[in-house]
Amino acid sequence: MRVDVALVHYPVSNRHGETIGSAVTNLDLHDIARAGKTYGVSTYWVITPFKEQQELAGQIVGHWTHGYGGSVNPDRSDALALVTICASYAEALAGATAKFGESPLVLATCAKEQANTLGYAEVRRRIRQGSPVLLLFGTAWGLGPELLAAVDGVLPPLRGATGFNHLSVRSAASIILDRLLGERDGGE
Amino acid sequence: MRVDVALVHYPVSNRHGETIGSAVTNLDLHDIARAGKTYGVSTYWVITPFKEQQELAGQIVGHWTHGYGGSVNPDRSDALALVTICASYAEALAGATAKFGESPLVLATCAKEQANTLGYAEVRRRIRQGSPVLLLFGTAWGLGPELLAAVDGVLPPLRGATGFNHLSVRSAASIILDRLLGERDGGE
Repeated sequence: MRVDVALVHYPVSNRHGETIGSAVTNLDLHDIARAGKTYGVSTYWVITPFKEQQELAGQIVGHWTHGYGGSVNPDRSDALALVTICASYAEALAGATAKFGESPLVLATCAKEQANTLGYAEVRRRIRQGSPVLLLFGTAWGLGPELLAAVDGVLPPLRGATGFNHLSVRSAASIILDRLLGERDGGE
Repeated sequence: MRVDVALVHYPVSNRHGETIGSAVTNLDLHDIARAGKTYGVSTYWVITPFKEQQELAGQIVGHWTHGYGGSVNPDRSDALALVTICASYAEALAGATAKFGESPLVLATCAKEQANTLGYAEVRRRIRQGSPVLLLFGTAWGLGPELLAAVDGVLPPLRGATGFNHLSVRSAASIILDRLLGERDGGE
């Protein structure tokens, strides 16, 4: 599997549609790292341009990968070892491209339907064929419009049989990794 | 859809396999309520026998359903309105049975393969046919053995192509709701 995940803290939208930078949160690091490790993600890029936020994220990850946390909970250490902190989307993309040896297919995720949609079955197929993929997730009210415009495609919104789709980014990332990379054995 | 979710804080296992009661956390309430609302869950039972923990959960939910939180974020209010706090599994089961007018199919979730497995496709089919279902999720290291022995069946562990499956309960609940209740349009 050649799939990376990136969690974007800038540029993202606030509730008024303005572009902002959001704060790193502990459980976004843990939950998405654990889901990433479960589904075979290669690198979990945590993107924030703010030096203090980079340091905070680094301290959290370090506690679990090199500090006391990892010694009492090695599984958590394995998960958080996926994290690479970087300053921008461009830096994450360059890192993923260098690692994969080619440009990954970059896919945004969005709670609203977008024009350039690429479906789950198609992306799942491409991953199985060996295409490298970089999945972008937005914090706050989602990825900024400049990022949505820059990607190769957008995954369809996650939906149940209701009009409501206000999932946390932790839930959305977990569900999307399962749709793209989950084993479909065990009765399905 | 006649599907309820229950988050169990007692009886659950700790890392040594001992039965304990765990603490209610803010994001377990929010993330699972948001996923539940997205996928059409009827009631989200939060089970804890501890009075102080029931009060804490009630204050968090009240802030979003009747307090300031809901006035600035009505979507969050809609999600947290699914929550009913109760003292035991027996109380949640009795409440679900009274509401549905019949006993629901009670399914546990577990990161380890269990003997009495019921697959995702089969449960999805039963839900579509109108069978009421109550899904149990365990905090800490998972549901206590007395609960695993009491249910009608256990859903298969969630897996990617790795041996690792240490998902947060927030991730596991979100993925399982998507597998059982998610719309499969949009390219799939």
